[in-house]
Amino acid sequence: MNTLGKNIRLTSYGESHGEVIGAVLDGFPSGFPIDKTFIQYQLDRRKPGQSSIATPRTENDEVIINSGVFEGKTTGAPIHFQIKNTNQNSKDYSHLKEVYRPSHADYTYEARYGIRDYRGGGRSSARVTAGWVAAGALVQDLLVKEKGVYIGAYVHQISTIKLITQPRYYSLDSVESNIVRCPDEHIAKEMIDAIHQASAQKDSLGGVIECVIKGVPAGLGNPIFDKLNAALAHAMMSINAVKGFEIGGGFEMSSKRGSEVNDSFTLADGKTQTTTNNSGGIQGGISNGMDIVFRVAFKPTATIGVSQQTITNSGENINLEATGRHDPCVVPRAVPIVETLAALVIGDFLL
Amino acid sequence: MNTLGKNIRLTSYGESHGEVIGAVLDGFPSGFPIDKTFIQYQLDRRKPGQSSIATPRTENDEVIINSGVFEGKTTGAPIHFQIKNTNQNSKDYSHLKEVYRPSHADYTYEARYGIRDYRGGGRSSARVTAGWVAAGALVQDLLVKEKGVYIGAYVHQISTIKLITQPRYYSLDSVESNIVRCPDEHIAKEMIDAIHQASAQKDSLGGVIECVIKGVPAGLGNPIFDKLNAALAHAMMSINAVKGFEIGGGFEMSSKRGSEVNDSFTLADGKTQTTTNNSGGIQGGISNGMDIVFRVAFKPTATIGVSQQTITNSGENINLEATGRHDPCVVPRAVPIVETLAALVIGDFLL
Amino acid sequence: MNTLGKNIRLTSYGESHGEVIGAVLDGFPSGFPIDKTFIQYQLDRRKPGQSSIATPRTENDEVIINSGVFEGKTTGAPIHFQIKNTNQNSKDYSHLKEVYRPSHADYTYEARYGIRDYRGGGRSSARVTAGWVAAGALVQDLLVKEKGVYIGAYVHQISTIKLITQPRYYSLDSVESNIVRCPDEHIAKEMIDAIHQASAQKDSLGGVIECVIKGVPAGLGNPIFDKLNAALAHAMMSINAVKGFEIGGGFEMSSKRGSEVNDSFTLADGKTQTTTNNSGGIQGGISNGMDIVFRVAFKPTATIGVSQQTITNSGENINLEATGRHDPCVVPRAVPIVETLAALVIGDFLL
Amino acid sequence: MNTLGKNIRLTSYGESHGEVIGAVLDGFPSGFPIDKTFIQYQLDRRKPGQSSIATPRTENDEVIINSGVFEGKTTGAPIHFQIKNTNQNSKDYSHLKEVYRPSHADYTYEARYGIRDYRGGGRSSARVTAGWVAAGALVQDLLVKEKGVYIGAYVHQISTIKLITQPRYYSLDSVESNIVRCPDEHIAKEMIDAIHQASAQKDSLGGVIECVIKGVPAGLGNPIFDKLNAALAHAMMSINAVKGFEIGGGFEMSSKRGSEVNDSFTLADGKTQTTTNNSGGIQGGISNGMDIVFRVAFKPTATIGVSQQTITNSGENINLEATGRHDPCVVPRAVPIVETLAALVIGDFLL
Repeated sequence: MNTLGKNIRLTSYGESHGEVIGAVLDGFPSGFPIDKTFIQYQLDRRKPGQSSIATPRTENDEVIINSGVFEGKTTGAPIHFQIKNTNQNSKDYSHLKEVYRPSHADYTYEARYGIRDYRGGGRSSARVTAGWVAAGALVQDLLVKEKGVYIGAYVHQISTIKLITQPRYYSLDSVESNIVRCPDEHIAKEMIDAIHQASAQKDSLGGVIECVIKGVPAGLGNPIFDKLNAALAHAMMSINAVKGFEIGGGFEMSSKRGSEVNDSFTLADGKTQTTTNNSGGIQGGISNGMDIVFRVAFKPTATIGVSQQTITNSGENINLEATGRHDPCVVPRAVPIVETLAALVIGDFLL
Repeated sequence: MNTLGKNIRLTSYGESHGEVIGAVLDGFPSGFPIDKTFIQYQLDRRKPGQSSIATPRTENDEVIINSGVFEGKTTGAPIHFQIKNTNQNSKDYSHLKEVYRPSHADYTYEARYGIRDYRGGGRSSARVTAGWVAAGALVQDLLVKEKGVYIGAYVHQISTIKLITQPRYYSLDSVESNIVRCPDEHIAKEMIDAIHQASAQKDSLGGVIECVIKGVPAGLGNPIFDKLNAALAHAMMSINAVKGFEIGGGFEMSSKRGSEVNDSFTLADGKTQTTTNNSGGIQGGISNGMDIVFRVAFKPTATIGVSQQTITNSGENINLEATGRHDPCVVPRAVPIVETLAALVIGDFLL
Repeated sequence: MNTLGKNIRLTSYGESHGEVIGAVLDGFPSGFPIDKTFIQYQLDRRKPGQSSIATPRTENDEVIINSGVFEGKTTGAPIHFQIKNTNQNSKDYSHLKEVYRPSHADYTYEARYGIRDYRGGGRSSARVTAGWVAAGALVQDLLVKEKGVYIGAYVHQISTIKLITQPRYYSLDSVESNIVRCPDEHIAKEMIDAIHQASAQKDSLGGVIECVIKGVPAGLGNPIFDKLNAALAHAMMSINAVKGFEIGGGFEMSSKRGSEVNDSFTLADGKTQTTTNNSGGIQGGISNGMDIVFRVAFKPTATIGVSQQTITNSGENINLEATGRHDPCVVPRAVPIVETLAALVIGDFLL
Repeated sequence: MNTLGKNIRLTSYGESHGEVIGAVLDGFPSGFPIDKTFIQYQLDRRKPGQSSIATPRTENDEVIINSGVFEGKTTGAPIHFQIKNTNQNSKDYSHLKEVYRPSHADYTYEARYGIRDYRGGGRSSARVTAGWVAAGALVQDLLVKEKGVYIGAYVHQISTIKLITQPRYYSLDSVESNIVRCPDEHIAKEMIDAIHQASAQKDSLGGVIECVIKGVPAGLGNPIFDKLNAALAHAMMSINAVKGFEIGGGFEMSSKRGSEVNDSFTLADGKTQTTTNNSGGIQGGISNGMDIVFRVAFKPTATIGVSQQTITNSGENINLEATGRHDPCVVPRAVPIVETLAALVIGDFLL
């Protein structure tokens, strides 16, 4: 179903080329002043056409909030976010009506529903995340202002180019200092170059986003099937193109010994802390008060200009060279999406 | 909360050193003949004391099924599985009453609940997975017998020793041909040696389990927040010691180009298939009829005999050398647990 | 929360005097042709200003459907229904800013949320049911066209004037033959007169709606906490002003003996049936194939022109005489709302 | 499904003539000392064989609690309650194997599941409520001791004999002063006589339970589909034999005018209160701080000794005269069940 969360619930609707996309946020606390500036800011970080490494397709992605707010404050009633699709050009896509694009959801949607809105991917398009980001930004804003919880995502890897520093919280400013959203200027430049190069070759790149959440108090999360890390994994795997999730030391810990990666407890600043943070801030599914650290793996954009073999829904072999406007690498634009979902998950447990 | 699933629901209860552990399976179809042999077989694969690389602690883990079954068949009513804890030796653990063991859930449970059953990890112990396995084995059995869905998990990596073959479904027999549950005899032997060696050094190892599910029809899974891969990730992250989840090409795809990893569609045997399976059998959150392939990363066992620094709940520094009976590597025993949760997830969508 | 249902899910948003009200319907089957005529017809039965016994406040209640539909058919994606509030006149309500109107939700919303959209009742207004009706009408349409399930609600009682015939399914035409929606012309006239009289006296009336659902197959519903009758009760109690729910023989059965009201089974037309239907079509929480019959009790409209004592939120005593445009009796307009919720519940179990 | 609640969740399992019945209570707060005396007391109020107006069938209904409790206190882990069925005599029921008993769930369970545990009603037996009562009593105990919330249910009507006083909270002692659990000695005696008489005539009686909850703070409940009254209705309709639910003025309000039944607000004892309580303590789905008042209608016991016509599952006409041990009126034994479910619902919102 199209709903995330139990106490704070996001319900998403809309398609890439419908009139509108939107989201309903239910369970959000009352009395919080709406800051449309931050919401719009997060939408702008996600929107197409924002830089030379994003799709040239442009959308203003201006959000309308038309319920759940009274005299500038939330009322506890469901909050409805709506964004108009202004740049849908259905003609761009009519030739894809019968094609199963490689590594897209064309075939599976048809298998599942027997019908498919083929315009720009329809419901399976990443466009629908605009609604999430609007709603999630509101939760993120409240987490900062009322709970002291800061969520900072950044690009950790593009193709084979990786940030090698330890995970830490980076401010929005330092992440936004370049268009690829990697807080190391030198590596960022390499990443941007790599994206430009892949783009010139009509190809696409993948990457990894790292997210650090500071300020989460110890004791958040529920055993056994409602673990905080399980909820985060679930949310992140809901993003298009995501193929992996890891927390703290992640997959690398599989190669290590217990004596190398166990996090010892210590008392620091009068607080129970761990000397290392391979646990990624969560133990037994419950936060331990250290930074929550996780990484999300994105595959390269499925839509590429390079010629590919595939078939139509009548089984005919065809050759496909995408000509539409698409991102050579979705990872930089996915940074606010990761933050959004993290905010929704943390909010679901904390608010 | 302690419930997994929406249509097929597992509710778990019990602690490591309580009288019993158990599970209630709700929503299971009626009229299915119970095969206690397979259920017990899966429990035996999970149970302690089964081999030289598992904890010497022994439990028979004999399951009692005392509701939801009438004259040998399921009735549609909730099925209750109960397993007695016969070998709980609470004296073993009394010295841990006030200790926060490194990389365990002692501190977080105390932060969350203000109270903690410290005997053997209490509710946070992997012992509680015995109840899951009993319930999941029944679902797994039905998937095989009535749906032609086969779930095969195996050890893919122990420490730095990795299986290098492509993921594929291995029969239970070939997985069970050795005690580490890796279907390559040569690599299995290396893995076993590594575990013996770590054990002798009072240390522990991590590893990776790969799971291949064949026979899932195309069209299973729901967008957007109810994706099949998101549900699998959620379930797998519910297992103790799991730090990562990846599907199909996983994290490696982040380093690749679209032209390298896109899965082209083709018509083979009159069926829409993909020529490669980097998608891992799921596209847009919905199964595409190819094998579902995922990997689960386990950190090394937190309990080790090597001396470690940590603190008590009153902030006192102490030195800890675990002397209890524990696994040098939990990964081989976790194979049926991965299968169990996969069965519960697939069953939740398919039944 | 503002969501009803598990498989077919309605999420509602909006306030009486906001810009819009709306609803998202998730889980609706794909491939069903949208009939906007029937949806609008049900909205028109609910809308204000429709007759001399309804509030003179007028709204066109024209519905926009802008997601989940492609080329006239549902796609399986969430369907968004939106209705503009064209006649909101916030000045009408500003004097109520601080008043706790008797038997309204002013005080409880303030106690719950600390803030309140006082314009026309805000979120607690029955206006929000317009969104439900739009979504429910689509489900109702599918139940008729694809499942042969017919839901017929009608006014059974207004004030002390009651229909005395046995419950049965009445066609839409016979229910619509008069403005009070009671399928007995003589009794309907009495009801209408009673409403006119109460209205002239600035007072209000309550009543009872009876609903008969034919065509539901035997075997729908789940024990124990997911009984079909429990789901119906839950849904009906969600309607403003509803104070009671009963099924089949209802409260009257409490005065009877088992030998008087037990429903004997018999074979009729080759089908297992009961000779009487005091069970109201549901036994043990599961449909038995007979007509489902239930009644919903509505209290009189809380808003009346008669002078009432009450207090403000600062504890000041005041005298209140409502002058706004309100219904002397909400029951006739609630008929499509009862049908809508019945359709959503039956759809949730059947689709 | 067999689970009630969202935050405090009861999962029920077991059948009338299985080895055990049980319940898992999840989400219960940690650190609460278990009072097995009160739990057993509530079970004893529900158990068969307790008086001359209950079934002579006897069960000790002794509860075992074997998880979620450590050193006498709850730990936050799921709490498992188990009760042995000691008096199941399957021979009593073998002649019912193929019979569809009038107004029982035999036919509907068979329609739903294709299979049926016919011994004593199997899963559809009211016996399974013993598990609920054990779990609910714990919640009820905590509501009293930590929240000052008192739930008092009592018999309001048996057959045509009714209590005529206004609803009010009666202490356990006054309710328990007689075996029919009606807090008016004179009327209680009439009720008991009526039950004895019906029993002598091999017939059965119905009745109504009234429940008053005092101490619930204003502000509990969520609009729109998560109203406190909707949750109460849902829970009460989950009890076998219940045919109706009403809150506050209930069905009678349908015959009244707004001016007669509106509840005016007033300031009393420095608290916002209403001068009357026709709302039954809930307005707009949210508690207003007044006593919560509702009534639950029970039909007469379906099992009677009087001869009845019915059919078998092969369509054969048969004559049925129940000879098993059954209650001539279930209402007195249902009093703790109503309290239990009320406690679970209030706890779900409040804890």
